[in-house]
Amino acid sequence: MNAEIIAVGSELLTPHRQDTNSLYLTEKLNDLGVEVRFKCIVGDDAEGITAAAKLAMRRSDIIIFSGGLGPTEDDLTRESIAEALGLKLQRDSAILARLEERFAKRGYKMTPNNAKQADVISSATALPNSQGTAPGQWIAGKYDGHERIVMLLPGPPYELKTMFENECIERLRARIPAQHIAVRTLKMAMMPESQVDARVAPIYKKYADIETTILAGGGEIQLYLRCRKDSQAEAEARVEDLAEKIEDELGDAIFSRKGEALEQIVSYQLQMRGMTLATAESCTGGLLAERITSLSGSSRYFLGGAVVYSNALKTQFANVPKALIDQHGAVSREVAKALAEGIRKRCLASFGVGITGVAGPTGGTEQKPVGLVYVALAGEEGTQVVERNFPGDRRNIRLFATQQALEMIRRALL
Amino acid sequence: MNAEIIAVGSELLTPHRQDTNSLYLTEKLNDLGVEVRFKCIVGDDAEGITAAAKLAMRRSDIIIFSGGLGPTEDDLTRESIAEALGLKLQRDSAILARLEERFAKRGYKMTPNNAKQADVISSATALPNSQGTAPGQWIAGKYDGHERIVMLLPGPPYELKTMFENECIERLRARIPAQHIAVRTLKMAMMPESQVDARVAPIYKKYADIETTILAGGGEIQLYLRCRKDSQAEAEARVEDLAEKIEDELGDAIFSRKGEALEQIVSYQLQMRGMTLATAESCTGGLLAERITSLSGSSRYFLGGAVVYSNALKTQFANVPKALIDQHGAVSREVAKALAEGIRKRCLASFGVGITGVAGPTGGTEQKPVGLVYVALAGEEGTQVVERNFPGDRRNIRLFATQQALEMIRRALL
Repeated sequence: MNAEIIAVGSELLTPHRQDTNSLYLTEKLNDLGVEVRFKCIVGDDAEGITAAAKLAMRRSDIIIFSGGLGPTEDDLTRESIAEALGLKLQRDSAILARLEERFAKRGYKMTPNNAKQADVISSATALPNSQGTAPGQWIAGKYDGHERIVMLLPGPPYELKTMFENECIERLRARIPAQHIAVRTLKMAMMPESQVDARVAPIYKKYADIETTILAGGGEIQLYLRCRKDSQAEAEARVEDLAEKIEDELGDAIFSRKGEALEQIVSYQLQMRGMTLATAESCTGGLLAERITSLSGSSRYFLGGAVVYSNALKTQFANVPKALIDQHGAVSREVAKALAEGIRKRCLASFGVGITGVAGPTGGTEQKPVGLVYVALAGEEGTQVVERNFPGDRRNIRLFATQQALEMIRRALL
Repeated sequence: MNAEIIAVGSELLTPHRQDTNSLYLTEKLNDLGVEVRFKCIVGDDAEGITAAAKLAMRRSDIIIFSGGLGPTEDDLTRESIAEALGLKLQRDSAILARLEERFAKRGYKMTPNNAKQADVISSATALPNSQGTAPGQWIAGKYDGHERIVMLLPGPPYELKTMFENECIERLRARIPAQHIAVRTLKMAMMPESQVDARVAPIYKKYADIETTILAGGGEIQLYLRCRKDSQAEAEARVEDLAEKIEDELGDAIFSRKGEALEQIVSYQLQMRGMTLATAESCTGGLLAERITSLSGSSRYFLGGAVVYSNALKTQFANVPKALIDQHGAVSREVAKALAEGIRKRCLASFGVGITGVAGPTGGTEQKPVGLVYVALAGEEGTQVVERNFPGDRRNIRLFATQQALEMIRRALL
């Protein structure tokens, strides 16, 4: 079975906002064995919504609308879809009573415009919204001779997710032939995509029954494996077989088999060893610390660190001798090493990281071009320094540099 | 005139990737006076692309396709659109020669699959791709009696942007009736959306000829004003008139009139005064430093700072007395103040910022719940501390806390 997701809302047709619900819905649909074939975004415009609905009814088995279920004049999803399906809207008195009650509870009288949220398409089942006012709707039946399932869900992501989990997944499962799908996500850091593909393509191409997708970005390669079989055990065994062969080929270049972020893996490793980390960042300006502390519980292994943008602070917070900076320049192998060792000592950490480089777009020279970054990792067994030339813009260079640092920590802890 | 943007690529129908080109294209089209009415995403599937193209040709004046122009079997945009338009593909020998030359320059022999990138739809103009191999295409003409403009652009964002800027904007301008549109973006920090709307709605509702959009998120309200008139002067005067009235109402709560980020405004202010900044972050873990240093040239006013996750580092890097932490706890007004004052002194900065709080989801208590954050700003004239209870998840709480800090710096520099 295949699905189409239609996001309704004029704000999603501006340069300022993007539909994100479809990513969540796609993941859940894929888990049920349903492929998303089309995604559309239409404005708060009855004609456009009706046309999109008609087209979708012709080409897709499952159609999910998000947004446009609220009480305002702009909320046109209900009536436009009723029109597309040639069905009527009926005001549901029980829903109306619940809406009035909800307002009364908060000490408000319900304004009349809210009543339209109680309009239900004939033949639809209203889906309770535990997180907001507008109920959703579920319609299943024949349309032009084809079995179709149509869902109307609210636009706010938290309302949509809760309603989909509570009201839609089981209903879908009951109507979709039982699917047995196994998936694996393998992640690699700091390897070129072409190199990964050259090594693994000869392997995965032998598995025609496994869908393989390679995506790259931000110093990370993601390899998605997906297999559908008559039984779950068969699917799992098959995908496991391919995953193992790829792991044999790439070895410890693979940092995750479940889709975790690199900072999460480093977190597991440090906690398992009872070790701690401190950072001294120049060109990344705190991004490495920010990534590490984005995880709850990171205080168990991350002590802290310094953002040493000025040379004076490199000396003050990470004990880098002024003479060393004067001799080699702030962007140098020697200063990266001194930053890592200095911050490790100052923080009494198991590991110290030092990063210095030219993030650009200004500040590059012929000897030290934009993208040149030194990353150092100091530990009990000494200090290693890596020199890299990262491509792309300031954002990308900074992201690559933190990815490099995390990968060095991970490899040191293997 | 209205436009439709169609992104082609099966990876955009997975849970892992999202089309972002359409945000850029929408902004540029809006500047030309063109509204985007529909956005669609289709997979690497000839039938789906052809159907989407046919529908778009019926309902939209300008149709932009992105992606699917590469050399692989999956790249089907060219042939599918030729099919939809009932036109033929012709191999362009000049493009073919340039492709071969490009490969030869890098020391490779071009593999035969690359040749299809030289296929041009009859009546189309090939658009050179200065950033990659696949040329784009531009088609303008009548289709079923309607004037239509169709563009085929490459999927990689950098290639698409460069091609659109260099090849498409002027061509569009020549075919679109001259538009006179004036826009203003007003931004406010740390105000509730409902409060902003209650204050400004009575004002903007009097300007029926100005489209007003309010969006909120991450401790920021964005107010977009957009006016179309017969002359640019008229449009500018009208939008300026409304912007001024809103500014009279909201006063210095407005931090930007041109859409700049809050860290950019703080950057202007600090540079203008020749002042410097240092930060001591606990719960934000480097996010404030990261935001500040995301701007090129930030080393002119940002000295650096400390990420003081452990209590020992609060003492070591920001001179916070151990006794103060023992007495009040790490998350307290007193420690925030000491962090700001300590880091200011240690870094010899004009301003010091201290942030401490509970970012969650764990670590909250009845007295100090998740979301409680103290932000302190120390300057020559003393130290102010703000206590806030931020809603949402860890990411949101950390973002709000940095927004609060930046807003305090901005107000101190007014």
